[in-house]
Amino acid sequence: MATDPRVKDADLPRLTDRIVATYDSVGTLHHLDHCPLPKYCDVVSAVQDLMEILYPGYRQREGLHRGNIGYYVGDLLDRLHDKLTKQIGRALQHEAQRLFEEGGDGVVGPCESREDYEALGQAKTMLFLDRLPELRETLATDVEAAFAGDPACKGADEVIFCYPGLEAVTVQRLAHLLYELNIPFIPRMMTEWAHGRTGIDIHPGATIGPYFFIDHGTGVVIGETCVIGSHVKLYQGVTLGALSFPTDDEGNLVRNTKRHPTIEDRVVVYANATILGGDTTVGHDSVIGSSVWLTKSVGAHSTIVIEKPKLRVRSDDTAASA
Amino acid sequence: MATDPRVKDADLPRLTDRIVATYDSVGTLHHLDHCPLPKYCDVVSAVQDLMEILYPGYRQREGLHRGNIGYYVGDLLDRLHDKLTKQIGRALQHEAQRLFEEGGDGVVGPCESREDYEALGQAKTMLFLDRLPELRETLATDVEAAFAGDPACKGADEVIFCYPGLEAVTVQRLAHLLYELNIPFIPRMMTEWAHGRTGIDIHPGATIGPYFFIDHGTGVVIGETCVIGSHVKLYQGVTLGALSFPTDDEGNLVRNTKRHPTIEDRVVVYANATILGGDTTVGHDSVIGSSVWLTKSVGAHSTIVIEKPKLRVRSDDTAASA
Amino acid sequence: MATDPRVKDADLPRLTDRIVATYDSVGTLHHLDHCPLPKYCDVVSAVQDLMEILYPGYRQREGLHRGNIGYYVGDLLDRLHDKLTKQIGRALQHEAQRLFEEGGDGVVGPCESREDYEALGQAKTMLFLDRLPELRETLATDVEAAFAGDPACKGADEVIFCYPGLEAVTVQRLAHLLYELNIPFIPRMMTEWAHGRTGIDIHPGATIGPYFFIDHGTGVVIGETCVIGSHVKLYQGVTLGALSFPTDDEGNLVRNTKRHPTIEDRVVVYANATILGGDTTVGHDSVIGSSVWLTKSVGAHSTIVIEKPKLRVRSDDTAASA
Amino acid sequence: MATDPRVKDADLPRLTDRIVATYDSVGTLHHLDHCPLPKYCDVVSAVQDLMEILYPGYRQREGLHRGNIGYYVGDLLDRLHDKLTKQIGRALQHEAQRLFEEGGDGVVGPCESREDYEALGQAKTMLFLDRLPELRETLATDVEAAFAGDPACKGADEVIFCYPGLEAVTVQRLAHLLYELNIPFIPRMMTEWAHGRTGIDIHPGATIGPYFFIDHGTGVVIGETCVIGSHVKLYQGVTLGALSFPTDDEGNLVRNTKRHPTIEDRVVVYANATILGGDTTVGHDSVIGSSVWLTKSVGAHSTIVIEKPKLRVRSDDTAASA
Amino acid sequence: MATDPRVKDADLPRLTDRIVATYDSVGTLHHLDHCPLPKYCDVVSAVQDLMEILYPGYRQREGLHRGNIGYYVGDLLDRLHDKLTKQIGRALQHEAQRLFEEGGDGVVGPCESREDYEALGQAKTMLFLDRLPELRETLATDVEAAFAGDPACKGADEVIFCYPGLEAVTVQRLAHLLYELNIPFIPRMMTEWAHGRTGIDIHPGATIGPYFFIDHGTGVVIGETCVIGSHVKLYQGVTLGALSFPTDDEGNLVRNTKRHPTIEDRVVVYANATILGGDTTVGHDSVIGSSVWLTKSVGAHSTIVIEKPKLRVRSDDTAASA
Amino acid sequence: MATDPRVKDADLPRLTDRIVATYDSVGTLHHLDHCPLPKYCDVVSAVQDLMEILYPGYRQREGLHRGNIGYYVGDLLDRLHDKLTKQIGRALQHEAQRLFEEGGDGVVGPCESREDYEALGQAKTMLFLDRLPELRETLATDVEAAFAGDPACKGADEVIFCYPGLEAVTVQRLAHLLYELNIPFIPRMMTEWAHGRTGIDIHPGATIGPYFFIDHGTGVVIGETCVIGSHVKLYQGVTLGALSFPTDDEGNLVRNTKRHPTIEDRVVVYANATILGGDTTVGHDSVIGSSVWLTKSVGAHSTIVIEKPKLRVRSDDTAASA
Repeated sequence: MATDPRVKDADLPRLTDRIVATYDSVGTLHHLDHCPLPKYCDVVSAVQDLMEILYPGYRQREGLHRGNIGYYVGDLLDRLHDKLTKQIGRALQHEAQRLFEEGGDGVVGPCESREDYEALGQAKTMLFLDRLPELRETLATDVEAAFAGDPACKGADEVIFCYPGLEAVTVQRLAHLLYELNIPFIPRMMTEWAHGRTGIDIHPGATIGPYFFIDHGTGVVIGETCVIGSHVKLYQGVTLGALSFPTDDEGNLVRNTKRHPTIEDRVVVYANATILGGDTTVGHDSVIGSSVWLTKSVGAHSTIVIEKPKLRVRSDDTAASA
Repeated sequence: MATDPRVKDADLPRLTDRIVATYDSVGTLHHLDHCPLPKYCDVVSAVQDLMEILYPGYRQREGLHRGNIGYYVGDLLDRLHDKLTKQIGRALQHEAQRLFEEGGDGVVGPCESREDYEALGQAKTMLFLDRLPELRETLATDVEAAFAGDPACKGADEVIFCYPGLEAVTVQRLAHLLYELNIPFIPRMMTEWAHGRTGIDIHPGATIGPYFFIDHGTGVVIGETCVIGSHVKLYQGVTLGALSFPTDDEGNLVRNTKRHPTIEDRVVVYANATILGGDTTVGHDSVIGSSVWLTKSVGAHSTIVIEKPKLRVRSDDTAASA
Repeated sequence: MATDPRVKDADLPRLTDRIVATYDSVGTLHHLDHCPLPKYCDVVSAVQDLMEILYPGYRQREGLHRGNIGYYVGDLLDRLHDKLTKQIGRALQHEAQRLFEEGGDGVVGPCESREDYEALGQAKTMLFLDRLPELRETLATDVEAAFAGDPACKGADEVIFCYPGLEAVTVQRLAHLLYELNIPFIPRMMTEWAHGRTGIDIHPGATIGPYFFIDHGTGVVIGETCVIGSHVKLYQGVTLGALSFPTDDEGNLVRNTKRHPTIEDRVVVYANATILGGDTTVGHDSVIGSSVWLTKSVGAHSTIVIEKPKLRVRSDDTAASA
Repeated sequence: MATDPRVKDADLPRLTDRIVATYDSVGTLHHLDHCPLPKYCDVVSAVQDLMEILYPGYRQREGLHRGNIGYYVGDLLDRLHDKLTKQIGRALQHEAQRLFEEGGDGVVGPCESREDYEALGQAKTMLFLDRLPELRETLATDVEAAFAGDPACKGADEVIFCYPGLEAVTVQRLAHLLYELNIPFIPRMMTEWAHGRTGIDIHPGATIGPYFFIDHGTGVVIGETCVIGSHVKLYQGVTLGALSFPTDDEGNLVRNTKRHPTIEDRVVVYANATILGGDTTVGHDSVIGSSVWLTKSVGAHSTIVIEKPKLRVRSDDTAASA
Repeated sequence: MATDPRVKDADLPRLTDRIVATYDSVGTLHHLDHCPLPKYCDVVSAVQDLMEILYPGYRQREGLHRGNIGYYVGDLLDRLHDKLTKQIGRALQHEAQRLFEEGGDGVVGPCESREDYEALGQAKTMLFLDRLPELRETLATDVEAAFAGDPACKGADEVIFCYPGLEAVTVQRLAHLLYELNIPFIPRMMTEWAHGRTGIDIHPGATIGPYFFIDHGTGVVIGETCVIGSHVKLYQGVTLGALSFPTDDEGNLVRNTKRHPTIEDRVVVYANATILGGDTTVGHDSVIGSSVWLTKSVGAHSTIVIEKPKLRVRSDDTAASA
Repeated sequence: MATDPRVKDADLPRLTDRIVATYDSVGTLHHLDHCPLPKYCDVVSAVQDLMEILYPGYRQREGLHRGNIGYYVGDLLDRLHDKLTKQIGRALQHEAQRLFEEGGDGVVGPCESREDYEALGQAKTMLFLDRLPELRETLATDVEAAFAGDPACKGADEVIFCYPGLEAVTVQRLAHLLYELNIPFIPRMMTEWAHGRTGIDIHPGATIGPYFFIDHGTGVVIGETCVIGSHVKLYQGVTLGALSFPTDDEGNLVRNTKRHPTIEDRVVVYANATILGGDTTVGHDSVIGSSVWLTKSVGAHSTIVIEKPKLRVRSDDTAASA
């Protein structure tokens, strides 16, 4: 016998006991509770359903046409309603429970009934779904911007099928609608799912105008309080971030301030540029060059590039790898 | 009852109608058409089959050996032939339809028969598959380059199993063969799939010599008209990109020009370096240091590093986060 | 008939023969052998089981509570024991076979019996699993660090659910335990899986203290011989890498040296900073600003930022895209 | 090593060759042909879709209501149209090919184009689907008959959920519609699928009136040319079969005659009764007792039972088992 | 184009409308309601979980042993509790709703809250699960009876693995426990599932003693009010059924009477025997021969066989087939 | 909260303990052992692979043709070899262990090494697979017999696709080959799987000649020591069984005798006939009529039918249902 059965009969039960003991001794890493969390795979499934409604005919269902699209979308929407109602209800109930345990708000009681939160979840779900027609209009401008901004692109189909930038922006726009409805957890789960797939990390709180285009995209980070105008174009590696967080007289972080920059209409930011700070505004029709590092506002129609760096013959210790 | 049935019985149908109406009013975001697009999951499945043929024994099928490999590959190739024939047929038909609707070419008619395009798809598929034996020879050089270039690497097995750089390059080499056969859509679907998995974005059009190695890889971008020699090595975050696009006298983009650099044999480009422009050539046996930003050609045997940046004590507003 | 049956009846068999011939003529790209490799999907499955044990109640199983957690974890651990025993046994056997074929060690014989390696695999598995209770304590510090380091974060649940940094660090800590047990292949398979999901590439060999936090994370690279203290915080795009590899008198790479930097306690490294070299130490309580490029040691309590780069109006050839 | 690799490397290929040789030498047991057969799992899937349309809300989709049923059925019907069109097209093409090879009809040519048969398949599919509204009316009578005929039954829900008799009859009624449209293969595939699930074997050709109820059902056999009136009720093990087949002067079977009995309205046939012969008619309002064996017609209002068999003390050799 | 898009664009929507109209006009064949039915696949899944608890180590989970069985069963039981609680709650709610709509009971109100019925479902679930230890003792006698009754049987493993009779009896014993708890729908769903798999149809209401063995089994039917003693053995095709149902003075069926026979201890009933009627008792230690047809009670130690039927040379019309 | 968490936290663990206790107190219903049993789903999968090899092109893989059949079958055979080797090794090891524990043979030792039994399993597997070419010749006669015996049948395709009789006979012929190789468990698992699907129960031990046809089939039982000649045809409900088992002077069952009948060449047995006893032989070219009950031998060319049963008007108590 290759493996030792005594290990399985005796040692594993002992190890199980030791691990289970840590669920009490190490307190913050488990969710052992009769009040359920949103289910990750159902949130992802809801995003995929939403993508299918927004861009019908591309990914999942083949053979859609004028004669069947109404049935397909109606059925999908019905399922989506149920899925979101349940998950949003869970998120709201969990948040209420958390606030109650923290005693943070005082007025918020513990979860009494799952059904009450499902009713609340349904109400928020309907407010969210109601925004979809309008959202499709905005997404059409994003597709148009990608097509206009990339000479290699042959049509809208290619953008919708292949461009990670559009995927990340679509998911963020959906998450942003939920964020505005004060739904906890789920918006961030959605944008982090897109982050994992595209390398583009846009916080659900960011406000983004129409005709937005991110090319290549890997490494892009856009912070929670960014405000981005229309016809803005970003390339890979761009950070729209915060400067170090201000503190008050007692040394505590000042929260709920605008920490991330404002990018006005028709700005282009080239690869790996870094723009930081809540008071930093890039005026409309400006161009920020590749690898620029900017922490101050610039006026409209500015073109900012870094000075050509001086290059020299390499000494032995400067080229690097990991 | 937790949720309100009236919402489901009445409000959802109304919302469905509003969404469906946007499929007419917002025109570019759907594919409602009896002429099918390539199916994303089948294209991905074809790539996985190709990986299995190129590197048998690593991912999917266990227990391959001299006695059964012929059966396995013969069977896999047969299925792959059918899968690619269908998808390439769809891509060609869709493109013909698109050109017809644009009136762009005049001579290209609408799709008459799915079978005609499947026949065309089969012909292209065979031309593509015919290149696989030769491709394995090139990939062997890539594996060798990874092994030689990373002192921590213990053997070819580890490269094939674990290195995202090899995965991205393999998919690009496959996509490039299809690109050369003028197959629309599918090459880009393939490289964007690899982009999502590895963070490495190589356009199918890029021409890449043997013994190519990308280490770590996240954030690498290689543009469509890049020409890369043999024994070239790149690190994470390297961009081989375009300068701003030239325009003609009427302000239109000049297309089909070489917009991305040429990297000659035995060049090493360290992390986060940026090399831009179609006229930029990095001469053979050169080294481009980490974070270098280069828009001019450099001769053979050059070693380019940035000047050590001056560092200073931080003022309050310069360290950043998002 | 749309497709030509003669192609399938005659040309595909010929092509199969040509491809199979390359499995002999092109030698390093296949695993055709009766001695099995670790199975990729089972290694991934083991990682997911480990995540479920470490953070119960978040991803896979719903409805865990004090009354059933012991059963659930005991059962999961039992399955995991078998899964890891088999995969680790395979990795050890494959490595022994490789060393035997290389003649590298002389004393290591070929694989005689699968059962012997499974017994060895079981022993290593038990040593590994035995570390899980302690590991949960360390991970609790990582969750706490994320919560403390991000003002937007509302609780441990959100960190565990959504933060790619925690996912990458958790997988690396698991892989590091296996790395310390000299298990080949599998640690790297694990960290590369996390790399693909998060864009964060941490070598299994890196030594990392408690309270470690990576925010956003895409593009982070941490090399094999890095030593990182406690309460360290990194942002996206940070490289902790090697300078060019030293060679001995005969031009061969000097191996097994410390090639990557040491980061002491309470250091913060902002986005896209690059710190290189095995002799480079960042002293405790230091701050390394965004985009800093550092190849020399700095003392404790240093704050290093780059000089504000000089910006100028863009000339036509310097803004870039790919 | 437990198993002998020489077997796999050498003996299995030899065995493969021997088996493949039998595909030529033993001719009738394979379908090696570029002209596809109907796909079994797609036919089964179509039956399941049809059950869902006929009895919505019971098996697959939960939460159907007045507000979403139209979307759900419309979408399902659209998918079903495509599925049946393809499979019926295949069945027609295969049959045409078979007839051509047999030279049976002379006028039927070989399959030229898959698309032509798909067009034909679509036409037959529409004729079939057009009958579904009417079919639901008939099935409602079957459900009512089951409810009325079984005092233990509490409602239509229980019949639809649990009664194998209803399942077998529903599938036969569907198959009979296809049989009337002269679609080869598929009707029999459907009824044999139901036979496997219920033990009830009803030929697609049988003509069955409304209010039909089979209780328990295992072992029931109903032949191709049976004609069954309305309000007929059968129990388990009933055979409505053929007498031995008549032959013509040359000893050949006389085909296309009515070989199976006629059962008029309101007849009850109890368990294990056997009624045989194309000229045998059971007049309306008759009762055929358990285990009766009948090969002659009986008039209306007849009640036929077997004489109470004489029972006696068992001799040693008569009780039996297998 | 092979298929006609006009059919899909116009005719299918029209057909959908016609079918949907039948959901109102043909009223008993749908469940369009916000009050859910038990879910078929979850009931089946619960049965499979119960089989795994009753006979651990045979079907689903491999590698069970003394060291892990407690974890495995504890975890399975926890999931099963949730699954049954939900499904039983649904069955109770649906039944209450049905009775309310029928006005049958007057005192039963409509479903107000899903949660109330889940609480009721949990209570019934616990009463049911509580019987499992005792049930295993009974099942052990059934396994022993099969082993003792079949000389070809080599051990308990073979009985548990292969004998459809044991499967059918196990499912009936489970369903009978639920039947005794007055749970609607689900017991019958369970026994009909077993009926479909084994051809053995035992009503959940039948009362069956220990050491019960059915050999071969196809076609066995055992009615709702049967009472079967211990050490009873049946062969294939045996019916323990009802005589025709008695009616009262007004011609209505008399319900809730004992309609099916009583079989006392140590009776053997050979293949295809039929025993009918609620007043029919087969005394203990009797043997009923193959094909016997019995509607009267027989005393203890009886051996009943049919007279050898007279056989004769076949006339042309008597051998039969279907 | 609908459900009571105290039940889950406290009562379920107590119940788990009680159930686990029965694994010791009720001893024969579990397999808690480090020595594995054959895995049911893998045995079923092996049967399906064998069906695919025997009848290629019908069920699973589409598009088989002369050009790819060799690859497909070679690959399938290779996988099947591994699957059967493992399962047969397990069956042999389990049987050896059982015999050792019973002390039945004395000379058979306990299982020492899984690898030894896998080697034995491989040897038996090869002997089994070696019979497949010859088996296809026999199956071709069965298909021919079905086609010749059913005037409604249009071709071999229909028989292979739809006829449960062929399925049951094919599985029995496979199981019989394993039975002849003295492989425990697995032959019976295979025939019981087919029994569940077709209602036809043929023991793996039965010896069956070529050109065998079972029509309809539900309820057919064929015992272990039956010997059936060539060109034999059976209808539904036929039992070829044992008379009551003879006992020796001490009242013990006499084992290993021929208990089931011999059916010579060209015999037809119509529906529901019962033929019993090891000494009973039905001479060649005989016909046994429907419902005949035969326990004595009959000579060649006999035609046996039952006398037409006397029928009479039904008295109130004789028609039956369950």
